[in-house]
This record gives sequence, structure tokens and C-alpha cells, in this order.
Amino acid sequence: MSDRYVVGVDYGTLSGRALVVRVDDGTEVGTAVHEYKHAVIDRALPTTGEALPPDWALQDPEDYIDVLRTAVPAAVAAAGIDAADVIGIATDFTACTVLPATSDGTPLCWLPEYEGRPHAYPKLWKHHAAQGQADRINALAHERGEPWINRYGGKISSEWQFAKGLQLLEEDPEVYGRAERWIEAADWIIWQLSGTETRNVCTAGYKGIRQDGQYPSREYLAALNPGFADFVEKIDFPLLPLGARAGGLTAQAAEWTGLPEGIAVAVGNVDAHVTAPAAQAIEPGQMVMIMGTSTCHVMNGTTLAEVPGMCGVVEGGIVEGSWGYEAGQSGVGDIFAWFVDSSLPAEYRDEAARRGVSPHVYLSELAAAQRVGQHGLVALDWHNGNRSVLVDHELSGVIVGLTIATKPEEVYRALLEATAFGTRTIVDAFEGSGVPVRELVAAGGLLKNRFLMQMYSDVTGRPISVIDSEQGPALGSAIHAAVAAGAYPDVPAAAAAMGRVQRRVYEPDDERAKAYDALYEEYRQLHDYFGRGTNDVLHRLRKIRNEAHA
Amino acid sequence: MSDRYVVGVDYGTLSGRALVVRVDDGTEVGTAVHEYKHAVIDRALPTTGEALPPDWALQDPEDYIDVLRTAVPAAVAAAGIDAADVIGIATDFTACTVLPATSDGTPLCWLPEYEGRPHAYPKLWKHHAAQGQADRINALAHERGEPWINRYGGKISSEWQFAKGLQLLEEDPEVYGRAERWIEAADWIIWQLSGTETRNVCTAGYKGIRQDGQYPSREYLAALNPGFADFVEKIDFPLLPLGARAGGLTAQAAEWTGLPEGIAVAVGNVDAHVTAPAAQAIEPGQMVMIMGTSTCHVMNGTTLAEVPGMCGVVEGGIVEGSWGYEAGQSGVGDIFAWFVDSSLPAEYRDEAARRGVSPHVYLSELAAAQRVGQHGLVALDWHNGNRSVLVDHELSGVIVGLTIATKPEEVYRALLEATAFGTRTIVDAFEGSGVPVRELVAAGGLLKNRFLMQMYSDVTGRPISVIDSEQGPALGSAIHAAVAAGAYPDVPAAAAAMGRVQRRVYEPDDERAKAYDALYEEYRQLHDYFGRGTNDVLHRLRKIRNEAHA
Repeated sequence: MSDRYVVGVDYGTLSGRALVVRVDDGTEVGTAVHEYKHAVIDRALPTTGEALPPDWALQDPEDYIDVLRTAVPAAVAAAGIDAADVIGIATDFTACTVLPATSDGTPLCWLPEYEGRPHAYPKLWKHHAAQGQADRINALAHERGEPWINRYGGKISSEWQFAKGLQLLEEDPEVYGRAERWIEAADWIIWQLSGTETRNVCTAGYKGIRQDGQYPSREYLAALNPGFADFVEKIDFPLLPLGARAGGLTAQAAEWTGLPEGIAVAVGNVDAHVTAPAAQAIEPGQMVMIMGTSTCHVMNGTTLAEVPGMCGVVEGGIVEGSWGYEAGQSGVGDIFAWFVDSSLPAEYRDEAARRGVSPHVYLSELAAAQRVGQHGLVALDWHNGNRSVLVDHELSGVIVGLTIATKPEEVYRALLEATAFGTRTIVDAFEGSGVPVRELVAAGGLLKNRFLMQMYSDVTGRPISVIDSEQGPALGSAIHAAVAAGAYPDVPAAAAAMGRVQRRVYEPDDERAKAYDALYEEYRQLHDYFGRGTNDVLHRLRKIRNEAHA
Repeated sequence: MSDRYVVGVDYGTLSGRALVVRVDDGTEVGTAVHEYKHAVIDRALPTTGEALPPDWALQDPEDYIDVLRTAVPAAVAAAGIDAADVIGIATDFTACTVLPATSDGTPLCWLPEYEGRPHAYPKLWKHHAAQGQADRINALAHERGEPWINRYGGKISSEWQFAKGLQLLEEDPEVYGRAERWIEAADWIIWQLSGTETRNVCTAGYKGIRQDGQYPSREYLAALNPGFADFVEKIDFPLLPLGARAGGLTAQAAEWTGLPEGIAVAVGNVDAHVTAPAAQAIEPGQMVMIMGTSTCHVMNGTTLAEVPGMCGVVEGGIVEGSWGYEAGQSGVGDIFAWFVDSSLPAEYRDEAARRGVSPHVYLSELAAAQRVGQHGLVALDWHNGNRSVLVDHELSGVIVGLTIATKPEEVYRALLEATAFGTRTIVDAFEGSGVPVRELVAAGGLLKNRFLMQMYSDVTGRPISVIDSEQGPALGSAIHAAVAAGAYPDVPAAAAAMGRVQRRVYEPDDERAKAYDALYEEYRQLHDYFGRGTNDVLHRLRKIRNEAHA
């Protein structure tokens, strides 16, 4: 078996990464990254220069194909292997990133008549301009007592297929009408690779409101908007479990990638969800935190429970045979990056450069020298909205306790803490609903900040294990490619052979944990005050802001 | 009269300024500044290196004398006049800046045995470490129904003589016992100039709780702390009205200043209060805002009223014959400076330098290009506590509505607005208590920011006149010097001849005023939530912070 390989491709927010992995033991033998030429389109449409409204975030699918053309052959070359030894390929994607397409899979933004229309482009996960639609989806679901709404913590996110689809209908009905497909980028890329249109149970469940074998009813959709009655026709196509073979690599895709035509292409999947098997964290109670610009939490459970504000619970949504729970934080690394970009004085930047470290490393060192609470601050980590447990993308960040003696490293630490408190809020919601969280398993780019990881352990009072790979999602995709290629009978078997984790790398410190309890109590009070409508100031400010922009 | 001059000396937080003014028409003929060598002592005592606790702020009185030695002769030289033509000198000071001294006026910090004792130094106005004492002073006053408490908006500030004096007693009883005098720097400097110990009605009333001819009773003080029963003995000395002659310039002071021995020295006064005559704003309803690191509001009224949260109302406290009202904002320019020092990215600093302007000018230009509310933010301006109307120096700043798209110029604008909302809160409190505010008259260093001044007019819905002098307090002192020297019969007469103002330079814009009303309503709600105990998080965070420091 030692000369067989699979390729996992991880599609992120700003780039795509290909990873070549040995099938028998999961050894990572080569990797390459391609930065998207168009990155995130959130200010103006490149084709026309038209300014986009606030909260929009689009992408260009050409960037997704470019990853296949460049990163995959580069990873194979870096691995120094014979491409003929690759037996399968799988991908994972940000989600819900969703686009309108024709019945042959052509993105509408590639049609000359629509290239100047913002709504013809993929809406990236962090496109947050469909909150009005999401609010109506939720209100009507509760009013009608729709059975599926509590599978999503009581709220459908504005990030997901239905809210974004309804926004499309209501703001650009012509593009909506032309869209024969409303398809996750996760599934679209598999269509490009295999020539076969498939859908995966993961995004269908978490992002597409598919529960107990059904989508929301025609009557419900018509009540939202008569023109929306047939929406499900754009999303309901052959559905496959995770790890299934979608088809064989087409001649065209073989040419892009340099891989052998006909090798197994796994069904589409999501970055967070593939990471659970990569980190060997697929047992109930093992909550995986994929910590990057945002954080996604995924965990398997043995039973179905309704957790307030969770993103969703989907049967087989992470691994076949378990209930897959998902929750998330909309802004984590994004908030830290915003701080460094927008609030870091020159002398800090210069001192970090002098030490040859990033501003994040320098600020974390300074922050680590403070005692818990010494900064006198508490922040709410909603600079990019709140995904769990409030499910409200029109919330925004708050910082409390500033003085004219407050230093940058103190604000930075308060922001790190705010995200840890956000995680604790999620863990508490699961536990309170009878879904125990025994262990946190961390993955993602923020792992390298050991101060942050220890803080998460102290704040949550739980041990933290860490994935033993720098490419968790791509490794997770590779595991699914191996299963699709028939090298393992199922994902758990492949995960046992190919996944990697270091157990209990961080343990909570009792004294700090106790000190954080007091700050967390302040966070919780402010969370409810600003987040649950006691004072709806954040929504009013958002409305004032949007009107001033208009 | 045209060859007679007076010197006004303005003692600020970081420097002292001398101004030579022609007696007959108020022409400013020469000025000079001396920066205090010790600036604000707020981190460590220079003599011992001993770290100071949070919220401490001390000064060294040597710096006050140095102003007489350097700035006064420099101003006379710059004026190109004959020092023999100077007929009087007057000073104004920050307040309450207060020090312990012996019966001959020697500051205790000048005694070798006490130079290493923090409590032997003058406590600057912004020394905020006596809040615990202030809380007890207030609780007991209300409990006993002391008649004077409502003359101070119901709260004695931790900045004032009694709170700072009680802190001295309780934290360093030896220094307290040795202090035969507890004297405002405003009065101490006059003692140095004239050789005569006097007290002025302004600080005695506003900072020393002297009302209706009496200080708080011995019984009240003993109930606070038995050792405090005789406190008034340290502060109760011959009292003179504003503009009175304290004495003649001593030989020693003549040597320091180069001015003629024996010329009139006016009684001590306060920077904010002397500015009212300098701006010809001594009629009822003309509220003077002296806008610098902090803002002080002073206004004359014809009758006595109790305004919640005002700093105080004192008979003759601004001009003899009127009730002088005072209110204030603890942090204004200080907050803007903190933002620029602690939160300005290098590219903003560099761009400001490229344009040859200060970061404040550059940020204000960017901020001015935004529409009202476009930033989606609202802030509370309590980074240095709240002087009016909450009178609570353990409050701290809050900012609400941050997103990962928030830019520095947006936060900067929100901070400017927060201070304007703070002013409106004060104006509303006066109006609500039957003390009309017809017109705002602005003075101080922030005048030069025209965007800020227009914002204050829009936010308060009132016209703003501006003092027509860059040295308002020093000019106000000069006016008092002229009165003390007998050149005018009283301060109003001198103000009419020597003061200068430009009327209605700013008028509110209806549309912006309306838009600001909505933001002010948000400010007001958050003000009451965080400031009036609905959620006492700011006090708890302060306590946690202080414990972590300890």
C-alpha cells in the first residue's frame, strides 16, 4: 500500500491548498497553496467597479478552478511522487458559499450578460446582507411551527442557502429566474472534477435545511414569498453520504490537475467537518474547534438533542451513523487581524519587526505577562456578528472598561479572551441541553498561539488536545478521498489510520480558571443585554449605519 | 493708561504660561511657556523610584516656582516692555490640586524626611485614588442630611480637598499629622508671590465644601473618621473674593520674576473660572466650556438651584454677586490623545506626517467626510471617569458597534461625539433644573478643531461663540490682576475692556442635529445602564483590575 496516494484540496476564504497524503499511514508528502486572484469581493465588483453595499462578500469561481490548475500539480511536484500513484481526490470548502448556475453547472457570473450583476456571483459564507430574509424565515418558521427550525437552534442563519436564495429572488429576480441551480461551491467543484452533479448530506443538512429526508415545504416557501415556492427545485439533486464516490476524474479535470483520468472523486464536504476525522475526534463528547479567521465547532452525538443557538444537527453530517452537531463563532482570527491592522501603533509594529516576529506574536507575549483581569476590560466578540448561540449577524463588537491608561496589548488580550468566552458560551449551551462536552480538540491556524490555547483551556475549564497536522482540513479531505477510492471501508477506519492528534496538550490552571469565571460572568451579562434585546442598540446602530451609507 | 501692563500666569497640567497684557484694552503683548520638569508623576516617585498605585497623579511644586523664574521674565522679554510698567500679577491653577504644607507654607515633600513619601506631594486634580473616601463622604452626608451636599449635585468628587485629605489621613497618618496646612496649589502659589497666606472663595467653595460661610461640621468629620475631626483647621484661613489684592509682590518673588517688588498680587483663582470674564461670558445663561485635556463648564446664575451631578454652585464663585455654577467632563482631549497614542496605525501617522499635519488634524479631516451615524458606533466618554453628571471616577470608557470593517477615523469620530454627548448631558441637567443655557462659549486648546466645534453645536442644538484669545485663562488672570491693582473697579468692568469673544461662530445644522438626536438617545441609554448601576460592571472591572495589580 505504501506507494498509493490521495490528494486533499482545502478551499479557504482567501486561498486553496492541495495536500498529497500517503494512503496507508496519512503521511503528508507534499503541499502547495494558491491565493485567489479575486480574494474576497466585498467593496466593488471587478468587472464594473460598482460599489457593493455593506456586508456583501462575493467570490469568483475562476479562482476555485485555478487552485486545481496550480496548487494540485505543485503539491504533487513538491511531494516528488509519480502522479500515476494517486488513487483519489477529495475537497472541502467554506460553507455556506453558494452560487447560481445553469443546468450544466455554468456559474451565472461567467455568462457575459450577467458578469456585471453582483447577484450572479458566489456569495461567500461571510456575506451578511441577507439578515432581513433570515429574520422572516425564522419568524415564519416559528409561527407555522415548522418541525425543522429547532434542528438549527431555533434560527436559520443569514449565511445559509435559503436566506441568500431569498435575497437573490427579492433583489435580482431575473438572475434568480435564470438560476437553474443554487449550489454550494462544495458541490460545484465536485461537478467540475467528476462531470457528475451530486450533493452531499453535510451541506444539504447544515446549510440547506434538509431534515428527515425533506426540505421545507412548498407552502412554507410560498408564504415567505410566492416567487420562492419552487426554490427547492434549484437545490434538490442526488444526495450522497460523506466519503462516497461522486464519480471519476474527467479528462478535463485530469488535464487541470495532472492526475490520472478516472480516479475516485469524493462527494463534496466542508472544511470544518472533514477536520474531525483528521484529528481523530469523532467520538461523542469530543468537540473539534477549527480556529482560524472564524471558529467552527463540530461534534458527534449519539442522540438527537435541540441545543439553543447551535448552527445545526444533521444525521450523518460529520460521520455516517452519528448525529453531527455544529456551532460557530463568526469572528475570531478576523478580530485579532482587524485589531492589528486598524489599531496597532507604529512603535509596536516596529518593535515586532525588530524582534523578527509578527505583531500577533509580540502582542501575545506582552499580553501573557498580564494577570487575569489586570486590564480591567471585557469585550464582546461580535465584530463579525454572532453565529452561536445568538445567530445574529447584525450584532457588532463592544469593549467595556477603557481608560486613558489602557494599552494595545491589554485591548488585544481582552479580544482574545472575548473569543474564549464565546467558546465557553457554546460549550455551556451544549451541556445545558444534555449534550456533554468532554474534551476540546483544536485545529486551525490559531493553534500556534500557545498563550491563546492555554487561555481557552483556562476559560472553559477543559483539557485541549491538538491536531497533529498543520493541514487539518486538507488531511481530512485526503481521508475522504481514500474512502471514496475504496482503500478503507469507512471514514472511521481511514481516520484511525491516517488522522493524527496530540492528547491533552493544555490543561486548565485552577487559579486562572477561577479568575476567568468572574470575567466570564461579566461577559455573560453583557452578552444577554446586548444580544437578547434588553437594549437593542446594536441593531439600531446597524440600521442607522446602513441608512447613512445608502 | 496705555503703558501699564499686567501679567497673568496660567498653571496647567503639564506646563505654566505667562502672558503680558495691556491694562487699557487687553492686548496680549507677550507670552512664554515653561514645561514642568516633573510633568505628571503617575507611575513612580522620582526620588525613590517607588511605583505608584493605579489612579495616582502627583506633581512637584518646584515646577510651579520654575514657571515664575522662567516663563514670567521670558514673557516680559517677548513683550519688549519695561518690567517697571507692570502693575500687577495674578495666577490661575488647575483645581483641585492640593498639597500638605507646614505653617510657613513649606510643602512637606520639600522636607528631607518626607521626600520619599508619595502622600507628601501635591495631588493633581486627576489623582483618582480617593474614590473610596469620596463614597463614604457622600453616603454619610446623605445619611445625616448635611445641608451642603446638594450644592454639589449630591456628590463630592474624589478629586476634591476632603476626599484627598481623608485618603491622606487614612493611608499616611504621619504626613497628615505633620500637615499644618492642606492648601490648594492655587492659594499656595499666591503665598509664594505675596508672602501672605490667603484663600480664595472659588476653591474654598467648589473644592473645599464651604457653603453659607461654613465648612462641614466637626461632628460630621469625626463620624467619617475620628482622626478627621479637626481637618478644617488645615484649610480655614483668611478668605478673599476673586479679584481682591492678596498682597504685594515680595522681594524674593520680584527676584524670580523680574517684576517690581510690591506690585499687586491678586488672590488665587482657577483656570476655568478666570476664563469666563476673559470670554466676556459672565451673564446668566452663557455657559463657558474650557475644552482641553478635560472640559470644565462654568456659568453664572441669578438664583440658587440644585442641579443633579453638577460640580458645585458657589456664591461669588466666578464673579462676585452671582451664583457660579460649575460642571465638567473628566476626559476630553485626553481621550483623543490616548487614541492617537495607543491606537493609531503607522500608515495614518505616516500620512499625517506626509501632509505636514498632526494626526488629530488628519483624523478629523477623515472623520468630517463621514455622514452622521455612518460608523455605526456609539461610545461613552468615561476613559478618565465622569465628573458630571454621574460624579464617579471609577467609571471607564465603552465603545459599542465595532466591526472588522471599522476604521480608525470612525472610532476617532465616535470618541469626539461621545464628548459632545457628554456636554449635552450636562446642558440637559442644567435646563432640567431650571437653569437655562442660552449660549455656549468655547475656550481652550480644542477650539482649533473646527469640525469638533461644529459637532458640539449640532449635538447640543445651540450656537457656539468662541473666545478671541489663544490664552483664555492667562488673559482671565490678567483681568483679575488689573482689578487687584485698582485699574478697574470690578471684574465685569475689566472684562468689558480687556475680554474678547467672537459671537455665534457656529450654528447648529438642523439635519445633522436631528441625526445626532438618535445617537444621543443611544448614548443616554448606555450612560444610564453603565453609569447608574443597572449593570455595575465598570466598578467590578475596576475592582478586579486593582486587585490584579495589588
